[in-house]
Amino acid sequence: MNEVLDLGYARVDIGREARQGLPEVVYGPGKTVDQIAGIVTGLLEHNTGPVLVTRVAPDTAAAVLGRVDSGSYDEEARLLLWRPAAASGFSVVVAAAGTSDRPVAAEAGAVATAVGLDTTAVHDVGVAGLERVLQVRGLLRSADAVIVVAGMEGALASVVGGLVAAPVVAVPVSTGYGASLDGVTALLAMLASCAAGVTVVNIDSGFSAAMAVHRIARSRRATDPGGIR
Amino acid sequence: MNEVLDLGYARVDIGREARQGLPEVVYGPGKTVDQIAGIVTGLLEHNTGPVLVTRVAPDTAAAVLGRVDSGSYDEEARLLLWRPAAASGFSVVVAAAGTSDRPVAAEAGAVATAVGLDTTAVHDVGVAGLERVLQVRGLLRSADAVIVVAGMEGALASVVGGLVAAPVVAVPVSTGYGASLDGVTALLAMLASCAAGVTVVNIDSGFSAAMAVHRIARSRRATDPGGIR
Amino acid sequence: MNEVLDLGYARVDIGREARQGLPEVVYGPGKTVDQIAGIVTGLLEHNTGPVLVTRVAPDTAAAVLGRVDSGSYDEEARLLLWRPAAASGFSVVVAAAGTSDRPVAAEAGAVATAVGLDTTAVHDVGVAGLERVLQVRGLLRSADAVIVVAGMEGALASVVGGLVAAPVVAVPVSTGYGASLDGVTALLAMLASCAAGVTVVNIDSGFSAAMAVHRIARSRRATDPGGIR
Amino acid sequence: MNEVLDLGYARVDIGREARQGLPEVVYGPGKTVDQIAGIVTGLLEHNTGPVLVTRVAPDTAAAVLGRVDSGSYDEEARLLLWRPAAASGFSVVVAAAGTSDRPVAAEAGAVATAVGLDTTAVHDVGVAGLERVLQVRGLLRSADAVIVVAGMEGALASVVGGLVAAPVVAVPVSTGYGASLDGVTALLAMLASCAAGVTVVNIDSGFSAAMAVHRIARSRRATDPGGIR
Amino acid sequence: MNEVLDLGYARVDIGREARQGLPEVVYGPGKTVDQIAGIVTGLLEHNTGPVLVTRVAPDTAAAVLGRVDSGSYDEEARLLLWRPAAASGFSVVVAAAGTSDRPVAAEAGAVATAVGLDTTAVHDVGVAGLERVLQVRGLLRSADAVIVVAGMEGALASVVGGLVAAPVVAVPVSTGYGASLDGVTALLAMLASCAAGVTVVNIDSGFSAAMAVHRIARSRRATDPGGIR
Amino acid sequence: MNEVLDLGYARVDIGREARQGLPEVVYGPGKTVDQIAGIVTGLLEHNTGPVLVTRVAPDTAAAVLGRVDSGSYDEEARLLLWRPAAASGFSVVVAAAGTSDRPVAAEAGAVATAVGLDTTAVHDVGVAGLERVLQVRGLLRSADAVIVVAGMEGALASVVGGLVAAPVVAVPVSTGYGASLDGVTALLAMLASCAAGVTVVNIDSGFSAAMAVHRIARSRRATDPGGIR
Amino acid sequence: MNEVLDLGYARVDIGREARQGLPEVVYGPGKTVDQIAGIVTGLLEHNTGPVLVTRVAPDTAAAVLGRVDSGSYDEEARLLLWRPAAASGFSVVVAAAGTSDRPVAAEAGAVATAVGLDTTAVHDVGVAGLERVLQVRGLLRSADAVIVVAGMEGALASVVGGLVAAPVVAVPVSTGYGASLDGVTALLAMLASCAAGVTVVNIDSGFSAAMAVHRIARSRRATDPGGIR
Amino acid sequence: MNEVLDLGYARVDIGREARQGLPEVVYGPGKTVDQIAGIVTGLLEHNTGPVLVTRVAPDTAAAVLGRVDSGSYDEEARLLLWRPAAASGFSVVVAAAGTSDRPVAAEAGAVATAVGLDTTAVHDVGVAGLERVLQVRGLLRSADAVIVVAGMEGALASVVGGLVAAPVVAVPVSTGYGASLDGVTALLAMLASCAAGVTVVNIDSGFSAAMAVHRIARSRRATDPGGIR
Repeated sequence: MNEVLDLGYARVDIGREARQGLPEVVYGPGKTVDQIAGIVTGLLEHNTGPVLVTRVAPDTAAAVLGRVDSGSYDEEARLLLWRPAAASGFSVVVAAAGTSDRPVAAEAGAVATAVGLDTTAVHDVGVAGLERVLQVRGLLRSADAVIVVAGMEGALASVVGGLVAAPVVAVPVSTGYGASLDGVTALLAMLASCAAGVTVVNIDSGFSAAMAVHRIARSRRATDPGGIR
Repeated sequence: MNEVLDLGYARVDIGREARQGLPEVVYGPGKTVDQIAGIVTGLLEHNTGPVLVTRVAPDTAAAVLGRVDSGSYDEEARLLLWRPAAASGFSVVVAAAGTSDRPVAAEAGAVATAVGLDTTAVHDVGVAGLERVLQVRGLLRSADAVIVVAGMEGALASVVGGLVAAPVVAVPVSTGYGASLDGVTALLAMLASCAAGVTVVNIDSGFSAAMAVHRIARSRRATDPGGIR
Repeated sequence: MNEVLDLGYARVDIGREARQGLPEVVYGPGKTVDQIAGIVTGLLEHNTGPVLVTRVAPDTAAAVLGRVDSGSYDEEARLLLWRPAAASGFSVVVAAAGTSDRPVAAEAGAVATAVGLDTTAVHDVGVAGLERVLQVRGLLRSADAVIVVAGMEGALASVVGGLVAAPVVAVPVSTGYGASLDGVTALLAMLASCAAGVTVVNIDSGFSAAMAVHRIARSRRATDPGGIR
Repeated sequence: MNEVLDLGYARVDIGREARQGLPEVVYGPGKTVDQIAGIVTGLLEHNTGPVLVTRVAPDTAAAVLGRVDSGSYDEEARLLLWRPAAASGFSVVVAAAGTSDRPVAAEAGAVATAVGLDTTAVHDVGVAGLERVLQVRGLLRSADAVIVVAGMEGALASVVGGLVAAPVVAVPVSTGYGASLDGVTALLAMLASCAAGVTVVNIDSGFSAAMAVHRIARSRRATDPGGIR
Repeated sequence: MNEVLDLGYARVDIGREARQGLPEVVYGPGKTVDQIAGIVTGLLEHNTGPVLVTRVAPDTAAAVLGRVDSGSYDEEARLLLWRPAAASGFSVVVAAAGTSDRPVAAEAGAVATAVGLDTTAVHDVGVAGLERVLQVRGLLRSADAVIVVAGMEGALASVVGGLVAAPVVAVPVSTGYGASLDGVTALLAMLASCAAGVTVVNIDSGFSAAMAVHRIARSRRATDPGGIR
Repeated sequence: MNEVLDLGYARVDIGREARQGLPEVVYGPGKTVDQIAGIVTGLLEHNTGPVLVTRVAPDTAAAVLGRVDSGSYDEEARLLLWRPAAASGFSVVVAAAGTSDRPVAAEAGAVATAVGLDTTAVHDVGVAGLERVLQVRGLLRSADAVIVVAGMEGALASVVGGLVAAPVVAVPVSTGYGASLDGVTALLAMLASCAAGVTVVNIDSGFSAAMAVHRIARSRRATDPGGIR
Repeated sequence: MNEVLDLGYARVDIGREARQGLPEVVYGPGKTVDQIAGIVTGLLEHNTGPVLVTRVAPDTAAAVLGRVDSGSYDEEARLLLWRPAAASGFSVVVAAAGTSDRPVAAEAGAVATAVGLDTTAVHDVGVAGLERVLQVRGLLRSADAVIVVAGMEGALASVVGGLVAAPVVAVPVSTGYGASLDGVTALLAMLASCAAGVTVVNIDSGFSAAMAVHRIARSRRATDPGGIR
Repeated sequence: MNEVLDLGYARVDIGREARQGLPEVVYGPGKTVDQIAGIVTGLLEHNTGPVLVTRVAPDTAAAVLGRVDSGSYDEEARLLLWRPAAASGFSVVVAAAGTSDRPVAAEAGAVATAVGLDTTAVHDVGVAGLERVLQVRGLLRSADAVIVVAGMEGALASVVGGLVAAPVVAVPVSTGYGASLDGVTALLAMLASCAAGVTVVNIDSGFSAAMAVHRIARSRRATDPGGIR
């Protein structure tokens, strides 16, 4: 019964952290400053780990930070954050194909860092310039997991999936025009990828990719000698 | 240069095993018995790990097994296999929503086992009977990773994603009729899932889900004290 | 011939109430304040039951209320209302998956109340937190009918459809992004639901769901001992 | 724990009848004669109400009936049935637009009758011949609920929805060619219907429409003086 | 060679009138006031029949009328017009299903009148109120052709197609929401209509429907005793 | 009341001929030889004009002709016909783009002839060989109406629509592969045609195109001096 | 007027060769042996260059070759050919991603050779094994044009487009399953390619890709010193 | 390693010019004035050929030109340009179907000119007025390549493809409404074109069409006697 905090305008799942070991992340759009501040305050009080609000516009962010102390805001990632997790030693590389993919890559990176992953970003790794991919091959291969962020035809997921042995989580991006179909083409292409074992999350969802890697990192720690849950 | 074995009818990537630590899996459809036998023989000779051929019909499988010794065939999974990997101690549960999802779940399970995962299957875990889901909650939570196999509306991915902390890889299945759109509805629903960090592979691709978990398991072992690559 | 009231800019169906026992509900978008006021006045004069105008913006609503007495406006539901029906004793629960589903749930609830249903709303009942669903299981089971309002993957319809015996009317919501496809994914998923006998109305149409339940409630009263038509 | 009967090849939900008051209906496709016979036997033993298997081909049906006594088979509806419910007095009219809609209408009618509804079928009620619709207007208006079965453009749902006050459940049918898009056009048209409160089920799912009406009928009985649950 | 008038910014087809007997109609969007005025002036000079510009915003229309004498503007239809044709005695009824269909119906009516058809408009003829359809049955049957304008599920085309023997041209309208898919549902439904011989034009194209009827009217006059071409 | 002939397996609309002046055409698929023979016999008895059954396979046709005298069968058009109408003097040209469009063109031509139109067919009029189009320009311009039958990109509709003043009815054909999308591309292209007043019927529906022209021809005769209705 | 050879069942464009310098290629499906033989005989007689029939099944091919001398048949490409053109010195490489792409690549190669291009085929050049791509980089860069044949996600087009300066024509292939959508995904991905100036032809149309390169080769020869037309 | 210029906010591919002989073109949207100026400066310094930025709004263009000398801006084409290439003698005609296609045609023309092609533009060449097409037939046939720019049904690609022997690159345009589907209809129609060897680029991508022709022109020069690379 104490899993849910009822604020009237929202019934917050304060039990997820204990139940799943994952933060209950707040989706910003459609919520007022009051509502966000209230939910965040509730989570800070009843949970002990990081508190995140995604897709927050700058003015909303400033207003919320004015009410709830000790938070920070990443404007490119549009992420509000309190109590970031300590670094876990699990490394993730966020590789983005083009300049237009940056905001989504930023969200993936900021969320990944917030939940304790060691995050490295590389940009402009388009497959039409294989040299730029090959340049970062070593970096990609050294990572515990790779998040690939790409719009248009999304081919980077297949190329990276064929280069590394680690888990690859692909994020299609709604950039491009015409046949890009607002990210649907990249989504389909990533799912149809010829590279075995590449997985995909929703269009533009840098957040979900980071959480997928967080699950992987937690899974590892859970069974490591000395790992904690 | 010795990464590719040229058989005339196929240029086999015999370097993937060393390069990525992943088996080069053969996609059966469209290949003759001769071609499959030739490719398998090449992989057995130049690689040291498991050799898999997916989506093989029973009569083709029998003919291939008649030419290449020591293989086995899983009819429900339609998988041909040589040299399965030793058990790694990484556990995966394959949870299927309905009876129609069984063949896909079987492929996921057979491939997972072939690459060394400790695989457990549970069936008929449809969300329209929550009791059946809650019954296996303990099993799901004990797994290092969960593969969810579901057609129709694919809601099981969201429910499981909300129950466990481990990585969840969802496989949409092309069962159902009408609005199921040959698996596209389940695919879209799994991608739009309200459970954070659930990832998705192609429709009916039990194989790809198993390989995704194999990447996760390898990632863990790679950094474990005493882990081997 | 007296079924239609011709106002020049509209031919109002003033016979539906007598013919079907259902109110002729006015769809607000695209109509001027003058037109809405004229149609409402006509319906108030020629009919005896509730008069509703849906999807009305606040300023339009205020202007109409300034011309036609005794009405009220529900801003969250965007509903203008005159002469609400007396409570009928038929209970409906409106269950919404997430915060973004609130406006649609509000329309469903406001229309349901306007036509005489005993309406209860529950929010934040997402399937990624089954505890929140199970908490309200008793409430859901006590209802004469349930309206499920959900965007994203719309899985709540399947879960509720498996929990209760009463009629379940599902409303897909155009929230979410990417693979949510503006509500089409939830729509398809609800139609493909594994729960037998769940029915679906148009995307975002809280109004239509409420009217569907109104038909059910009327159907019951029609044959109840002492029921009136 | 005794909600599920584990047969190895299936985990049967034998608790639904008690839990929801709805029969656990078996979906036939993909199941062997042995499996169907086993599941039916289990349901007959652990439940007390009707047992149904949908979409069964004639030869499979004959084989199953040879193993499990006292069942019957409706070839047009492709339905296997044991222990039909007693008539409940709740009347439903199944109205089909064209000859091609007959198999789906037959399934709706057979399932409705099996669960105890008083079922009447009318055929060839296409809107391109309004006389045929108007001829049966009295019959339609006398029903406690109407199931509309229509392919092509599915316009019958709107017309009937405007004629009767009772609940209308529309079933799109995958007949027609070209722009009919295998039933998707009728599905979309029924959802976009201008008649308020019409609800829709999956393409070709006569079964689901009947179950939706069964929920309505049960809802009524549940609160009738003397009604039983 | 004198079929084309080259204005630099446009190569105007001044030969269509003589070649086809149809006016060369100017599509307004994307053209400046200068360009529209120039093209209209050219057509007035080199042709003898009506000159039309479609989809013109009020302020653009006013500016053009200030430069080119003797024109008129129909704001609801968004049509600029010079030299309307004399009445031909060929009657067309433009029947619109709902209030939202009015602008499209207005364009159809204004263009039809401009090219010499005797045009009558009827509104609010939705199939959910068959009485309103039956009321105007006599009017519909007396017409030489009928244009049906309908959004949402577009069922009016089927109903009218079954009531009259005359040519029926259906115009789907991009009103409605959700499953209406911006007019695509009405388009598909009209094409899949069960009424034989109903034809369809592009979504929202009242203009094209009027031109289709104009072709029919011309075809008749061409072979009438005393008809002129 | 005598508008409908109830045969048990079908309720035949025997009133359409008198009501609309159009034949009630029977759609063959899904009907048995017995059913077709019964319906045809009923129409022959109660109506006086042509009786048509579309999309009939050769063996079914032979069996029906063995039971109902005086009919004929057009194998390419797959049309069964009794009592063809006398020639009306209204000319229609059926122009087909490619060889694959022939069956649909054949249905259009056979139905057109059956209802009394003077029908001429021209084939292989693809726009990639404009010479072939220009060769038949005179023929096209002499027709009272033109039916354009084209698959792939359907461009012939636009070209013919720009060449003739008469009504043009376009039939998209489900030939071609890949991007032809089973006729949907031709359908969309014809609707988006730059030629004003071209109308479109369902994919592959030569029948509906012929009926559309029949409506046009009747419309003309209805008001001709001496015309009868 | 002598541009068209009328054979009754076909009007053959015998003028294209002189008019465009391109062969009039016959599309085989739907044509009888008699028709193909007749058309080929006509083209051989009235034209002087190569005569091709595409997509011909082996038995049909054998029958045609039995009637028309001096032809040859490529079974993998399903191409019938008479009078192949002399080698022109223009080189094209046909690069195919996977084994399943072979039939389409074979058609591209066979048609390219037939019209005089120097054709080289490379297979199994999937982007998930970049080594295999890089191995053939020199070959790709030496070509005057490259045809890329790929199904699934079609990423090879982007990679090759970024490696070579020559024209790249991409052919999407309808292999793969699920999210491959019968080649639509590869089609969209190739169109949305991040490599500038890559062009695309229809799904599976190896023929059209070869003809596109033929146009390029002719364009070059047309202006070469000593080039012939 | 010196292939990439790392500016922090972008990793610029300064090696493409040497590697492929093609300019590295900058995609403007989403980049700030600072970023564009920085990238352009880098390309001017490290490359020797033309530098282009596409899809730049006028105010952004003015600001960039204020920082980087010697550039020019084509407002209709929205193209920023430095160091245009010398004329190569390879001629391309850009043919646009309608007025709305002008901006895309302008981009194609401006990019083509920038990379050294001799560019001629013709407008208003719609297939509904074949005379306008035939008028420019000579011009089209004299070109070394043709770019066809068309929205709506895109039929111009097929017609031009049948008129000329040279390479034809088709650009679908997102003009039109309703069934034009934002350019998707033209895209599909161009791909399904009955004219052999027509190739297609992404919707609205005049840039990509020009680059495709640039590849063709380079290919020719590469092997011309005296040609340089």
